Amino acid sequence: VCRMRVDVRKWLTIHNSIVRESLAEALGTFVMMLLGLGSCAQVVLGRGEFGMYLSINLSFGLGVTMGIHTAGGISGAHMNAAISFISCVLGRLPWKKLPAYIAGQFLGSFLAAATVFCIYYGRAALRNYTAGNLTVSGPTGTAGIFATYPAPYMSLLGGFINELICTAMLVLCVLAIYDKNNNAALEGTQALLTGLLVVVLGMTMGMNTGYAINPSRDLPPRLFTAIAGWGLEVFRAGNYWWWVPIVAPTLGSLLGASVYKICVDFHNPPRPERKASEDKEMTESRTAICNISQERLHLQSFEVLCHWQI
Amino acid sequence: VCRMRVDVRKWLTIHNSIVRESLAEALGTFVMMLLGLGSCAQVVLGRGEFGMYLSINLSFGLGVTMGIHTAGGISGAHMNAAISFISCVLGRLPWKKLPAYIAGQFLGSFLAAATVFCIYYGRAALRNYTAGNLTVSGPTGTAGIFATYPAPYMSLLGGFINELICTAMLVLCVLAIYDKNNNAALEGTQALLTGLLVVVLGMTMGMNTGYAINPSRDLPPRLFTAIAGWGLEVFRAGNYWWWVPIVAPTLGSLLGASVYKICVDFHNPPRPERKASEDKEMTESRTAICNISQERLHLQSFEVLCHWQI
Amino acid sequence: VCRMRVDVRKWLTIHNSIVRESLAEALGTFVMMLLGLGSCAQVVLGRGEFGMYLSINLSFGLGVTMGIHTAGGISGAHMNAAISFISCVLGRLPWKKLPAYIAGQFLGSFLAAATVFCIYYGRAALRNYTAGNLTVSGPTGTAGIFATYPAPYMSLLGGFINELICTAMLVLCVLAIYDKNNNAALEGTQALLTGLLVVVLGMTMGMNTGYAINPSRDLPPRLFTAIAGWGLEVFRAGNYWWWVPIVAPTLGSLLGASVYKICVDFHNPPRPERKASEDKEMTESRTAICNISQERLHLQSFEVLCHWQI
Amino acid sequence: VCRMRVDVRKWLTIHNSIVRESLAEALGTFVMMLLGLGSCAQVVLGRGEFGMYLSINLSFGLGVTMGIHTAGGISGAHMNAAISFISCVLGRLPWKKLPAYIAGQFLGSFLAAATVFCIYYGRAALRNYTAGNLTVSGPTGTAGIFATYPAPYMSLLGGFINELICTAMLVLCVLAIYDKNNNAALEGTQALLTGLLVVVLGMTMGMNTGYAINPSRDLPPRLFTAIAGWGLEVFRAGNYWWWVPIVAPTLGSLLGASVYKICVDFHNPPRPERKASEDKEMTESRTAICNISQERLHLQSFEVLCHWQI
Repeated sequence: VCRMRVDVRKWLTIHNSIVRESLAEALGTFVMMLLGLGSCAQVVLGRGEFGMYLSINLSFGLGVTMGIHTAGGISGAHMNAAISFISCVLGRLPWKKLPAYIAGQFLGSFLAAATVFCIYYGRAALRNYTAGNLTVSGPTGTAGIFATYPAPYMSLLGGFINELICTAMLVLCVLAIYDKNNNAALEGTQALLTGLLVVVLGMTMGMNTGYAINPSRDLPPRLFTAIAGWGLEVFRAGNYWWWVPIVAPTLGSLLGASVYKICVDFHNPPRPERKASEDKEMTESRTAICNISQERLHLQSFEVLCHWQI
Repeated sequence: VCRMRVDVRKWLTIHNSIVRESLAEALGTFVMMLLGLGSCAQVVLGRGEFGMYLSINLSFGLGVTMGIHTAGGISGAHMNAAISFISCVLGRLPWKKLPAYIAGQFLGSFLAAATVFCIYYGRAALRNYTAGNLTVSGPTGTAGIFATYPAPYMSLLGGFINELICTAMLVLCVLAIYDKNNNAALEGTQALLTGLLVVVLGMTMGMNTGYAINPSRDLPPRLFTAIAGWGLEVFRAGNYWWWVPIVAPTLGSLLGASVYKICVDFHNPPRPERKASEDKEMTESRTAICNISQERLHLQSFEVLCHWQI
Repeated sequence: VCRMRVDVRKWLTIHNSIVRESLAEALGTFVMMLLGLGSCAQVVLGRGEFGMYLSINLSFGLGVTMGIHTAGGISGAHMNAAISFISCVLGRLPWKKLPAYIAGQFLGSFLAAATVFCIYYGRAALRNYTAGNLTVSGPTGTAGIFATYPAPYMSLLGGFINELICTAMLVLCVLAIYDKNNNAALEGTQALLTGLLVVVLGMTMGMNTGYAINPSRDLPPRLFTAIAGWGLEVFRAGNYWWWVPIVAPTLGSLLGASVYKICVDFHNPPRPERKASEDKEMTESRTAICNISQERLHLQSFEVLCHWQI
Repeated sequence: VCRMRVDVRKWLTIHNSIVRESLAEALGTFVMMLLGLGSCAQVVLGRGEFGMYLSINLSFGLGVTMGIHTAGGISGAHMNAAISFISCVLGRLPWKKLPAYIAGQFLGSFLAAATVFCIYYGRAALRNYTAGNLTVSGPTGTAGIFATYPAPYMSLLGGFINELICTAMLVLCVLAIYDKNNNAALEGTQALLTGLLVVVLGMTMGMNTGYAINPSRDLPPRLFTAIAGWGLEVFRAGNYWWWVPIVAPTLGSLLGASVYKICVDFHNPPRPERKASEDKEMTESRTAICNISQERLHLQSFEVLCHWQI
């Protein structure tokens, strides 16, 4: 029996690091999206009795926190194609890994949308609310539970700017939260702080566009709704809005990282007082506290973003 | 006098570890349930003036946090029969201790329900609200303060799936929060993070079924209401719903642990760079910081769940 | 000039530890009460547009957190006569210091009530709301901004039990949060956790009686309102309710400490593996991290409550 | 190519510490103000569907947290002219740096107001809400999104006192949160605690005056609205209110620091037990944990406020 156990475990173990990291991204994104989309469903379908807009903000934020705990030690828990993209630009994620990261994120996000649909549809709340008609907009429109749509008064350009700035703020603050050279959050609480950052972004710039700020959060659930019964209207709605949550966050991540680098990071003086030996000691102490192996350290969380190799 | 004092203390001291841990589970569960059920009572009986659905989510979450602080160093503060069950499956809690753990949890949960009834009944809010008629459902139905009932539109299967997935998410994220091999929350803040996890689960998957996700949270208060005046209707309601919050969380905990093991934990590479000496040093440093004795360490919090011995 | 500076500073320095600690209690209690009462005023006078019941819960909780940071290193930041009382019972605060502690708390609480009155009265919100008539109850009753009153449906006994249990939970969980022998919150985050505890108590047991759970929170503001224009009705209201928030919390603190001792603390095994040398090292390391001098250590926060000398 | 990269980076690096710190203040203040003002816009223009007063409190608080992470390691992240002023008074920021700090803060605050205007105006929510008329007060007055105005019932004196006391509380509690000689928040969580302090101040003393408590938060957005279309009415409104959020916080910071020094800090006993060697060790350990270079240490966060040189 014992032999068999070992064999099963061995058989299940993946040694290829790209597959491993892609799988971790899938699980982390699944956790984040299930919690985020679930709260959207609960607020919309519960007609405000089981939560409010603040609940959605809190749920997406805490979803990010939980996702970072789930995948952070393996892949860095990007859970966001724009974050993976900027990590490659900053030279800390190899470009060859980018497709695997994005594929994992899209898979997790798609499955989360399907799970939320399953929880809220099967003879249940969604059918009760929509009387069977899955419509994108209107008083009982429900596509907004899954993907983001701009408010009726928004132009494409206005929405693009909204998403661009919101993602720039996300990346800028994430860089700061993890920047040990500056005033980082305490190691082990950074997942919580990153979640609170997403909470405040939703309370601040969420009204106009639904704050996708993440291609992996928006496109896969939109695909799911197209398949699950809402039809191609999900791509036509909002004057073909669907490409904005893909392009704007990508450019926004560049903007945010550039602003942080130019305003803060480049001018941080080198620290001669931190000698190599001290560095070593520091790393050891950090290892002792956080149990981070060297191998995974360079991908840990968003540290990848901290050093821009111009 | 001094001699007498020592004798009293000695007389009160329990040396049997099973009784000790069972008692800690009882107290921790009592704390969690008193805070959680209390907020349900306040929101329902206060007709929304003294809280809202978010208050219930926050109270159950912070109740979990406070329960973990209360019992975490003694029994691990499972406070949930499904968590105790999965701990046994994972080989870290001896199966022979399982009945004592569950008995403690049920006792604490039952006493908490009785205490909430006492606070809100004696010539007070509950009687004022119900005009003396304790009914399970309807506009002034109050059984839902104590145990969970599915929404009217839910099927048994739909509710079962909801509870299954919600508990799976609970266990998956708890495993991640405490997994020192991955990206754990900082030691000493894990109780808070676990509480926030329960908050977000309530905001996300609470509408359909009341998110019991815990046999110890649901069955004892239901028993209490059956005795205290609501009658056997509490078992018949929702198409004999009562068994779902027992079976679904148990299976859900298996699902959640399996997904975490398969997607993340199995592939975490062994760490040759962490030598035995370093391990020792690490343990010492952790001891120095957290005052955790070796004996209790192996039961501490949910660390039990971190290594699955297939 | 420099000489004069030193003299001023010297002249202002108090070397008597009782006066020093009493002053710290006064300031800490002032901070807690100003933040707590201020939010009550804002919610009541703003007619719900500038906050809701949850805001009051959060403000009292965060007020406790800020008060603990303000006075914690000097006096332990009890800010609650019941906590000071139980500290004496547990043998960690000398009984002779108790009057000074309570006097400081009462002074701070009284001044906070006066400050809130000043902020919200001077040609301002309170006068606007009450049209000049300061009444205890009724649709524009405002005495409840300052002291607590039971809900109309409550009996004296019911309210007494509510306050008793709520204070017992407070003391029990505070003991657990600071119990290094159990599963304490991380040093430096305990003020936050204690604040969150007060938040959840308000969401859970606040409706019936206003959760005074603290003589120092209730009596001085009540005295202030009696003087400031509401008259002796503040003592007659609620069937002479005023003595309940004094007696019930005091007894409740005994209950809470007893339950924690009996259910958890007495059975915690001695730790032979922690040798004296290790203890020393630990203390040093804690000193290094937290800069707590030995002298103040034994009064630090609520550690006083952790060892009951029967 | 590599040579060119190095040159670009070199060209972008600022070595003058005043410019560097001023730029960091600008970015930190920008982050804080964009998040804060954004939530005001979302709550007002969304007519309460996308947030409530609590959202504004939370957003300003978390904005402060994110700003402190962004600029804390470079300039101390004052983001508030009153904090910079009191830092100079306390002798930890050279007076010659004060103009540069304030200039940076004003620049960041002005740009944040412009950005929020851009996000919410371009064919979007603001125009939709106001029908094109930018008015300071009245049912669709929108100037309050950017700068603070007193409630209609407030007198100038009452508002002045409100701002004075609120800023005094801010400075007093910030001093306590960072006071390692007292009961400071854990290093690395102080940004969060400072943010929560701002949250509670808004829930407590925000109704009467809008709790500017910060010249850098109020004047630059007011200037922006004057230019952007609201006209000079923004200075005349509230009986020429505009100067109060500049003068009252400045005096309030003096009051708060004085109270903290007189009630707590002066009487903290010297610590003979902390020898020089231990001090050194402590600093090293702190360096190892937080990576704070000596050079920046003396400006780190608000530590500047901890020692008053009378």
